[in-house]
Amino acid sequence: MHKLLLLPKRTDFKKYLDLLNSANLQAIEIVESPVSDVEIVFGEPSLIVQILGELPKLKWVQSTWAGVEPLLNPALRRDYLLTNARGVFGGLMSEFVFGYLLFYERKILQRLDAQRTSRWEPVVTRTLRGKTIGLLGVGSIGSSLASTATHFGMHVLGYTRASETCLHVDKYFHGKELLSFAKNLDILVNVLPNTPSTQNIINKELLEALPEGAYFFNVGRGSALDEYALIEALGSGHIAMAVLDVLAQEPLPPEHPLWHAKNVYITSHTAAPSFPEDLVALFVQNYNKFITNQMLDYIVNFDLGY
Amino acid sequence: MHKLLLLPKRTDFKKYLDLLNSANLQAIEIVESPVSDVEIVFGEPSLIVQILGELPKLKWVQSTWAGVEPLLNPALRRDYLLTNARGVFGGLMSEFVFGYLLFYERKILQRLDAQRTSRWEPVVTRTLRGKTIGLLGVGSIGSSLASTATHFGMHVLGYTRASETCLHVDKYFHGKELLSFAKNLDILVNVLPNTPSTQNIINKELLEALPEGAYFFNVGRGSALDEYALIEALGSGHIAMAVLDVLAQEPLPPEHPLWHAKNVYITSHTAAPSFPEDLVALFVQNYNKFITNQMLDYIVNFDLGY
Repeated sequence: MHKLLLLPKRTDFKKYLDLLNSANLQAIEIVESPVSDVEIVFGEPSLIVQILGELPKLKWVQSTWAGVEPLLNPALRRDYLLTNARGVFGGLMSEFVFGYLLFYERKILQRLDAQRTSRWEPVVTRTLRGKTIGLLGVGSIGSSLASTATHFGMHVLGYTRASETCLHVDKYFHGKELLSFAKNLDILVNVLPNTPSTQNIINKELLEALPEGAYFFNVGRGSALDEYALIEALGSGHIAMAVLDVLAQEPLPPEHPLWHAKNVYITSHTAAPSFPEDLVALFVQNYNKFITNQMLDYIVNFDLGY
Repeated sequence: MHKLLLLPKRTDFKKYLDLLNSANLQAIEIVESPVSDVEIVFGEPSLIVQILGELPKLKWVQSTWAGVEPLLNPALRRDYLLTNARGVFGGLMSEFVFGYLLFYERKILQRLDAQRTSRWEPVVTRTLRGKTIGLLGVGSIGSSLASTATHFGMHVLGYTRASETCLHVDKYFHGKELLSFAKNLDILVNVLPNTPSTQNIINKELLEALPEGAYFFNVGRGSALDEYALIEALGSGHIAMAVLDVLAQEPLPPEHPLWHAKNVYITSHTAAPSFPEDLVALFVQNYNKFITNQMLDYIVNFDLGY
């Protein structure tokens, strides 16, 4: 019997439990608070970190999030397998990024304004076709964005550490090529995780390297962005529009100037919600590997941070 | 020498002329007002209809629009080839329909409200994945919508006269199956042209056959919709949201109740703008067929109306 501690957001507990029960997993016992013989934890990193010291038999933690920062603190134990959620957020992130892009390019707000005063106003709209999108990070989420961009007839550039595995990226850039990657983009999307090497990677220099009028999306982690450099670039119009789902400090404090920076959309870390159905399916797949001693999917390297 | 009368919207004339000139077409002379030896007209049906009687040598009209209603009046001459614009609007229409769908499902307006008062508010959003979209008409525009819907993980049903050519449609319905087509849809999109058999096809009965809370898009023609039946269905909440790009009367008069019906978006016939680049490319292709006596693309059947 394998003891599983289930630790999603409290309001989701029942939903997760029902889904796990209907999956008919073999040799499993589910508990909702830490007991000494728990082998597996499935839940949110921010909750798991609070009870990490109470589980001497811990073998495996499956995170319900993609980002596992709370568990990466070097002072914490690392004597277990940590797997994160991957593959489930790509489609949701595409909906988010292309939802906002189309909202902006197709001028939905201007149309609403016209409608309020019963004005028939054939607003001239733009199109995504032919535009160039640059993905800072091309993992499973970046690949999904690349696929949607290709579907809409866009050019796709990718900046990665080394990998060139996504077929929908037209051209790859690495290492010192960051500024040449940036210089022809209509839209820059940051998808990078929070690691030591991604801190402030979107800084004044990178923003200035983007063409006048470019758009910027941050759906990776807030730590990757120099927020004050962005406020300045938005103010001057050099960056025409920005959508920020993640911020250096969350929740973003009410007094923060970003709330009312020019042409910015703040979306409160909701771009790719964790749907219990997706995460239980992912857990079930990994659990079946766990009990048959196969290599788990989506193992996090504690040093790389992803 | 073939004489071409160029009749786009006045403000676009120069743009069209430049594009045609740089295409280096053989044996062509371009004029901007009707003279008796004009063989070809390339422009907007609403302008062409005004000079149709002044062109005794007319052989071919290439419309810059998909809809050619002004030229279909049975009282008008039909002794020439009429070709419309097809193939160029599919991608633009996908941007429009999925732009509005994502805008609504991902609750962009609610997020904007939260931002106005500097509120960090993780709005729970919905997803397109798993939803069912029904296409009333599956020609080149419907096929493009089907392809985008499939990309976002949706189920696609199609209602057509007879054809079943689009690979992205999961299930087809025909003839008397209209109400069974409607009964499981989350979203109904009308893409039908204006023909005698499509008048008021979206009526009270069809709207009632849709599940409670369905969305409705009209990007075909206004004549296909019973607008008062829709206003009632929106008022009761049976239809949760509607996007109307085309209306029975355009411009929609300022006093029309649709402007302020519940949860309706009126978009002033701008879903798929005619970009001169696209239409000149299409004309050039057809012109090369014309001068070599090949069958033209996109010939309209005056009786069917498309």
